Amino acid sequence: MSSVKRTSRDIRTANRYEVLRQIIAKSPTSRQELAAATGLSLATVATLVGELLDLRMITEVGFEDSAGGRPRGLVAVNASGGALIGVDIAETYVHVELFDLALNVLARAEENVRPGESLPEQMVGHVAAAVGSVVAQAGTEGARVLGVGVSVPGQVDRATGISEYAPNWDWHDVPLLDLLTEHIAYPLYLDNPLRAVAVAELWFGAARGRGDAAVITLGTGVGAGLVLDGGLHRGVSNSAGEWGHTTIVLDGRLCHCGNHGCVETYVGAPGIMLNLRELSPRSTLLHPEDQTATIAALARGAARHDPVAVKVVRDTARYLGAGIADLVNLFNPEVVVLSSWVAAALGEPLVAEVREAVARHALPRPMAATEIVLSQIPSDPACLGAATFALEGALQSVGQKPGTRAAPAASRSRPAVRRRGRPEERERLREHP
Amino acid sequence: MSSVKRTSRDIRTANRYEVLRQIIAKSPTSRQELAAATGLSLATVATLVGELLDLRMITEVGFEDSAGGRPRGLVAVNASGGALIGVDIAETYVHVELFDLALNVLARAEENVRPGESLPEQMVGHVAAAVGSVVAQAGTEGARVLGVGVSVPGQVDRATGISEYAPNWDWHDVPLLDLLTEHIAYPLYLDNPLRAVAVAELWFGAARGRGDAAVITLGTGVGAGLVLDGGLHRGVSNSAGEWGHTTIVLDGRLCHCGNHGCVETYVGAPGIMLNLRELSPRSTLLHPEDQTATIAALARGAARHDPVAVKVVRDTARYLGAGIADLVNLFNPEVVVLSSWVAAALGEPLVAEVREAVARHALPRPMAATEIVLSQIPSDPACLGAATFALEGALQSVGQKPGTRAAPAASRSRPAVRRRGRPEERERLREHP
Ligand SMILES: [Zn+2]
Ligand SMILES: [Zn+2]
Repeated sequence: MSSVKRTSRDIRTANRYEVLRQIIAKSPTSRQELAAATGLSLATVATLVGELLDLRMITEVGFEDSAGGRPRGLVAVNASGGALIGVDIAETYVHVELFDLALNVLARAEENVRPGESLPEQMVGHVAAAVGSVVAQAGTEGARVLGVGVSVPGQVDRATGISEYAPNWDWHDVPLLDLLTEHIAYPLYLDNPLRAVAVAELWFGAARGRGDAAVITLGTGVGAGLVLDGGLHRGVSNSAGEWGHTTIVLDGRLCHCGNHGCVETYVGAPGIMLNLRELSPRSTLLHPEDQTATIAALARGAARHDPVAVKVVRDTARYLGAGIADLVNLFNPEVVVLSSWVAAALGEPLVAEVREAVARHALPRPMAATEIVLSQIPSDPACLGAATFALEGALQSVGQKPGTRAAPAASRSRPAVRRRGRPEERERLREHP
Repeated sequence: MSSVKRTSRDIRTANRYEVLRQIIAKSPTSRQELAAATGLSLATVATLVGELLDLRMITEVGFEDSAGGRPRGLVAVNASGGALIGVDIAETYVHVELFDLALNVLARAEENVRPGESLPEQMVGHVAAAVGSVVAQAGTEGARVLGVGVSVPGQVDRATGISEYAPNWDWHDVPLLDLLTEHIAYPLYLDNPLRAVAVAELWFGAARGRGDAAVITLGTGVGAGLVLDGGLHRGVSNSAGEWGHTTIVLDGRLCHCGNHGCVETYVGAPGIMLNLRELSPRSTLLHPEDQTATIAALARGAARHDPVAVKVVRDTARYLGAGIADLVNLFNPEVVVLSSWVAAALGEPLVAEVREAVARHALPRPMAATEIVLSQIPSDPACLGAATFALEGALQSVGQKPGTRAAPAASRSRPAVRRRGRPEERERLREHP
């Protein structure tokens, strides 16, 4: 059995994503503009626009004059055509956001997770409470939830909904989707933050309209979501993107994965703290046990040209430069995006150092083709990305009969969707199949 | 302008490749078997088979009984329906092979390249002589050449046919396709050996029928051709796959690329010689200035359990293990194939050590999904891959008017094709548009 899966159905789904992405980026717009922006034929665009109109994800909003020709029909995203929920489960918090279909945030909820409260049932309780909160806050909008995307750290089996391994909590084979289904009646989509952040950049950020991109998550953990040929690369068992465990120093620092010298041990928040401690063990910049405070102190220190802070940022950029050069040489991407809280905190001064460091390590030809930029997504990109998985789920199911599984030829890229609830709820859900 | 390029035309080309790949792998075969093997619909397979019949790349070869039903028409590759030439330009030789459409070798020629003879004009002279030789040897088959694929080391701009940088000869911006066109009248397709070797494995080797694969070239130079979603990943400027310049030892050995600690400096043939020299400076296994003899001596030494040879193979496998684990963590491929002459010489003993080393460095989930195997392609895989680029070129041009450029939406993945010759030759070429 061949693994060549690019069926016409997959293409149609990818094109549907691309057309909606363009409409969200620029509303109102015409079919002609969409054809020009996507490279698709006008006939294909017209068909896809028709499907999105049928789903009430977009609406007709009048006409524009075209010079001398027939007036052109304009469409815009139907912000109130449905709601999406994104859940970001992290080490110390659970963030939940409810979005309209234009991906504006309508409601937010946050739960703090105290150390030792990291049993799966406790985490599911936090998620259920926060989801309940945003639905209640959103009022009538909350009644139109199309799906809930959930981002959970570590290795996730998207098809079965199992969290196979979450190193920070020592979770092994937790049936997270089943646990969530007991509390949440909407279609659920589970994945990890590397891919959530990448899909957020692909739909709404610096990777939009790019063929190949790498989205670096720089937080406590480190990784790279890979956008290849305009879509997210998942790999054969949905674990692609573990760039944080690239060996850059053979026999270097011990990593929690068991390997030595992983890039994460030098550029994740704990690694940066160690860079600081090795340089200046008694530095006042160091807040032991508090990653956020230390990174914030380093950012302020670098801004006032404190030599220790400047040196730590430069050392961190040097490790990042070597690791990002590996990506540039290997993939030859159009853009590398630095995302997540450590990148946001250290900001442009870090990115400027990183650009120089990558240029020292990478080959000239792929380097010349690559931009290195800071993410411009303002809020929690893992929440936005998780909600985007729910949006993709709703778009992917167009034309499928409710409750049926995907066709075999496309099933590898389609997540398990669990639904629960009273019969009338199920009926409502099926209106948005 | 969006970079989402997966138009229906691209899919049709990819599916045409896949159907012909299956027919070459198993002839005769039926449309029903092809549909089962590719996951395509019977209607799609029937259309694609019709196109291949029109091109005379395949023929009808009778019927088979299907239990109780109508007899099924069988098709087979039409070996004599055309010829393909593959050219492998290496540091010390030029290999040229002429293949029939079943990719059997009909003729071979080899030119030795002496040190100091590496000017572009000299190299083109060698290629022209060897191509002339295989065409003459092949007789009437030589009259049906559909195209010539040329593999040249370094960074190649496939669209313009320029060898941008070949480090071993210090070539910069050599207009190689223009130079070759002065001597060779067939359509020419230029690319580098990393991608040639990968496409050979994709069509005829361990990557056939796999979604995601990495094909490691282990020779004087080192790299990885990436097969993603059943197709070759080229990157935005056709320079993806430079895995040889992945940093595994920060501040390690100086590489000719200017970086330090590249995987190539430890596992390319000169790097392996240095591993040996560092371990045992006066070893009789070492043949200074002769990579081939040294690698062969190491292979023989390891076979007779010579402790120095065993240790050098193990050290080399350790560096390879770290570098391949980076690929496994990042891409999550189904298979990693070790190819080229160093891998062939050191063989299964090396691969067994590499498997253990990768397992020590990689994460369990992607590791569990990946096979690590030695290439089973018997002859020069760069020649076979280069000929495959010519085959792909012939398949890609189906339905295009002769002489026209590709449609913009698909042009990024389509190479420049140069044609030259007397008018009657041009007419003949256009029969296979
Ligand atoms: Zn690690
Ligand atoms: Zn290098």
